[in-house]
Amino acid sequence: MDIIKVFADNVKKYRLVLGLSQEAFAEKSGLHRTYISAIERQKRSIALDNVQKIADALEIETHLLFIDGEKTLNE
Amino acid sequence: MDIIKVFADNVKKYRLVLGLSQEAFAEKSGLHRTYISAIERQKRSIALDNVQKIADALEIETHLLFIDGEKTLNE
Repeated sequence: MDIIKVFADNVKKYRLVLGLSQEAFAEKSGLHRTYISAIERQKRSIALDNVQKIADALEIETHLLFIDGEKTLNE
Repeated sequence: MDIIKVFADNVKKYRLVLGLSQEAFAEKSGLHRTYISAIERQKRSIALDNVQKIADALEIETHLLFIDGEKTLNE
């Protein structure tokens, strides 16, 4: 599992579930829009405290961000 | 959820399941013993690439490190 890719894909997936732009999501999470963009483009290995900010803003349990959706589809 | 605490508790739990000391686990994961110790004492907010090293060394799926065991017990 590529944790950076799985995390990136999940952030984008759940952000779109909420119908939020990167900018709106950045504001909600208290993180910068360029930081959210970098995460979704797999350019950042972020630290756990920011993982929690993101999960809180996505209104989901944290561990869901680490489940490989593609793997589930292929099993 | 306090992600640092949940992660710390899970690292220790699964390390003990494998019957490994912090030193043996550090060697297996390729991380330093003082770093493993700091994680378990909730002194570090680690980055995702090291989260993956730890999950791989624990031989578990990454998302299990983010499930709050205490919460499960109380529900």
